[in-house]
Amino acid sequence: MSALPRRCQVVVVGAGYAGLATAIELREAGVDVVVLEAADRVGGRIWSERRDGVVVDHGGQWVGPTQTRLLAWAERFGCPTFQSYDVGRHVEIWADGTTYPFTSDQHSEGPGVEDYERLEGRLDALAATIDLADPLACSSLEEWDSQTVHSWVDAHVDSPAARRRLALAVQGVWSCEPRDLSMFHLLFYVAGAGGMRSLMETIGYAQDSRFVDGAQAPALAAAASLGGRVHVRTPVSAIRQGDDAVTVETARGNVRADRVVVTSAPAATSHIEFEPALPTSRRRWLASSVMGDVAKVHLRYDSPFWREDGLSGQMVAYDAQPVGVVFDNSPDDGSRGVLVCFTYGDRYRTFAALDPGERRTAVLDVLGRVFGPQAMQPLDYVEQLWPEDRWAEGGYAAVPVPGAWLEHARDGWRTPCGRVHWAGTETATVWNGYMDGAIRSGERAAAEVTAALAAESPGAVR
Amino acid sequence: MSALPRRCQVVVVGAGYAGLATAIELREAGVDVVVLEAADRVGGRIWSERRDGVVVDHGGQWVGPTQTRLLAWAERFGCPTFQSYDVGRHVEIWADGTTYPFTSDQHSEGPGVEDYERLEGRLDALAATIDLADPLACSSLEEWDSQTVHSWVDAHVDSPAARRRLALAVQGVWSCEPRDLSMFHLLFYVAGAGGMRSLMETIGYAQDSRFVDGAQAPALAAAASLGGRVHVRTPVSAIRQGDDAVTVETARGNVRADRVVVTSAPAATSHIEFEPALPTSRRRWLASSVMGDVAKVHLRYDSPFWREDGLSGQMVAYDAQPVGVVFDNSPDDGSRGVLVCFTYGDRYRTFAALDPGERRTAVLDVLGRVFGPQAMQPLDYVEQLWPEDRWAEGGYAAVPVPGAWLEHARDGWRTPCGRVHWAGTETATVWNGYMDGAIRSGERAAAEVTAALAAESPGAVR
Repeated sequence: MSALPRRCQVVVVGAGYAGLATAIELREAGVDVVVLEAADRVGGRIWSERRDGVVVDHGGQWVGPTQTRLLAWAERFGCPTFQSYDVGRHVEIWADGTTYPFTSDQHSEGPGVEDYERLEGRLDALAATIDLADPLACSSLEEWDSQTVHSWVDAHVDSPAARRRLALAVQGVWSCEPRDLSMFHLLFYVAGAGGMRSLMETIGYAQDSRFVDGAQAPALAAAASLGGRVHVRTPVSAIRQGDDAVTVETARGNVRADRVVVTSAPAATSHIEFEPALPTSRRRWLASSVMGDVAKVHLRYDSPFWREDGLSGQMVAYDAQPVGVVFDNSPDDGSRGVLVCFTYGDRYRTFAALDPGERRTAVLDVLGRVFGPQAMQPLDYVEQLWPEDRWAEGGYAAVPVPGAWLEHARDGWRTPCGRVHWAGTETATVWNGYMDGAIRSGERAAAEVTAALAAESPGAVR
Repeated sequence: MSALPRRCQVVVVGAGYAGLATAIELREAGVDVVVLEAADRVGGRIWSERRDGVVVDHGGQWVGPTQTRLLAWAERFGCPTFQSYDVGRHVEIWADGTTYPFTSDQHSEGPGVEDYERLEGRLDALAATIDLADPLACSSLEEWDSQTVHSWVDAHVDSPAARRRLALAVQGVWSCEPRDLSMFHLLFYVAGAGGMRSLMETIGYAQDSRFVDGAQAPALAAAASLGGRVHVRTPVSAIRQGDDAVTVETARGNVRADRVVVTSAPAATSHIEFEPALPTSRRRWLASSVMGDVAKVHLRYDSPFWREDGLSGQMVAYDAQPVGVVFDNSPDDGSRGVLVCFTYGDRYRTFAALDPGERRTAVLDVLGRVFGPQAMQPLDYVEQLWPEDRWAEGGYAAVPVPGAWLEHARDGWRTPCGRVHWAGTETATVWNGYMDGAIRSGERAAAEVTAALAAESPGAVR
């Protein structure tokens, strides 16, 4: 490992998409930057592993057409994408074992579909009342932030099947249960993504495409472009602000800087000692941001055999099985078959409480019911339980609890604290919780910092 | 400061009531114990300061007749108590400026009193369905933990005035707003206190009596009885478990022990590094426990002049003023007059955002309206903003967010993690959130530890 510099203009804490975007923007403004990453790799909650020639995305993986900042990175760093496999029949399973086929063009004939679609339309209409330029100005902020999504649904949705569909949507998008989510946060997030369909659907929407070399590829290329400025295995223990500088402490030595941008996930940020202490609003916002619970399980086969049966590989389980949703995650050329299973919220907890052998059996049982006995004989089985990740402590993103937006966001969400600025996908308005939001947050923080540096010393930035 | 021992049987982290109770119980079982306290004093969220001859309780202060463990400590350590002043007229103020007198025997004629009393009865009946020996067995756990108190009230209480009264009760008891509180947590807490009246009322209930020398007096006496075993100014940075011992790290050196009992407030606990990492359920429970926001302001006068006007000094403000509730906090002999003002939840945030001069003016304005111009000329004005406290980071207690009881409590609430045990008022069933609950939690944890030590080595405990 190269030695840490003693001095730089800006220290960026965290080398996920937010931290890398911050550093790249600052470099382009001529700012001398150092990136400190706690883990042994860059990418944060995005991690692509090559296993026997096949790329497995253990974390975030998709890119959609309105995620224009991530697409710009894909272009800039030469990381090709390909459309998700969306041919053939998807399958939904209900608690009584009944299955219904559906496709992206043809709705399921399962229960509650029409009620659920009306519900999505209603949520979109409510979300449209939130101005992303000033979400706290929303006239219904107090009403919506005072209740869980569970309570809102209880009061406004009659159809039990539509409720069940929305619960799965909440699990899939926020990796928590409707009881964990403030109604305001749901609507804010929907607004930033451009609507419920944009979050939920595949081709043309958030799950449109994947990266040929994995979703970590742009992060790896971005880190490479920063040369020796990115230091992995360097957890920050303390950030101490003085009158004219800030000192970032690590076990590998301290770095003094004019400004710091903290981009780490909220759980990791809460382990950093700040001096002076962060303002109460910022501490409360962080303490009120609770990570979702999600695991991804990848299974590899010789080929995507389900395609021969006219199946897309997509499955949605409305029953109590540990698996919530399955996608065909095969490589671009279809040379192997890969299924990815997601489990989240209550189902995650049931899943994680099993021992590894039981977990594998539970996953194979579900896949066997839908894709046949061949699905029960994978060549590779690998699982990633994000709550066990040392630095992220969960996934996909931290969710503010009811009341947090109303009570703590005005000063605590992302307002700089002296020489300390904030980025990370949780500080994004557009595509909050996604890689695209992370990049946007880094670009916003970099603009804050360059403005601050220029104000202090006009020659500091180009 | 005396040197830390290198080795002991049990390290107790925190010297609030929970930590002191743990240590005292362990000593009585013949266990060699060391108590490490981060702050420069014992007592935790209980802190009595003598100001110009008058004891000011900046934190918890009352003791009630069913708080039998705290009363036993008062007796044991020779700390006299006296009944709270509850003579004369209390006053409630509404948003339109209307005031209504009331006494402990005579209800206010203000709006919503009867509806509110029915509501208290209903809450008591619901709370009575929770078995404190196994709160998670409650058949309505999922229903109640999926909604905020705000939502439950919205669905079940028609009278706006009764809702307003309950909001003030929530602020007063939990120092947060109804939107912040899970309905299950409210009912669990009510069950552990023996009913809503038990929480809310003065003589015969939770606010029955005060300590002549302040509520910290029993803690100081308890610490003294532990001799040199209590070490203040000793924050714990890490707790590392090995196969046959656990090492507690501090800047003053490390202590090896057979067991550790962590009794610190959740915010302080979250700053400790644990190796191995705590189980996800415990981390999630801590991350889902958010401190309330409360300040206490004490004002001293030559005499309790309001008593001469037939006023008790008790005031309840239903309007938007920063002050929520005022009590007569004069010393036992009435030799001086002291009023204490509480502000919490949204009102706390409004209050804390003012500069100190504005805060004082705001408090004096309210007191002047009820107690006359004399109230605006205090001899002493002192405020304690608990969210700014370095170690507690709020008060009175941490409140689990909606969903936390259901999702994380079974394994995460207080289940020992290897050689690490848990106490603190947040782990109590009876009088959770109170000094009495803190003592009970320490006694429970000490029993766990002595059983574990005896199982490992029969001669380890008496």
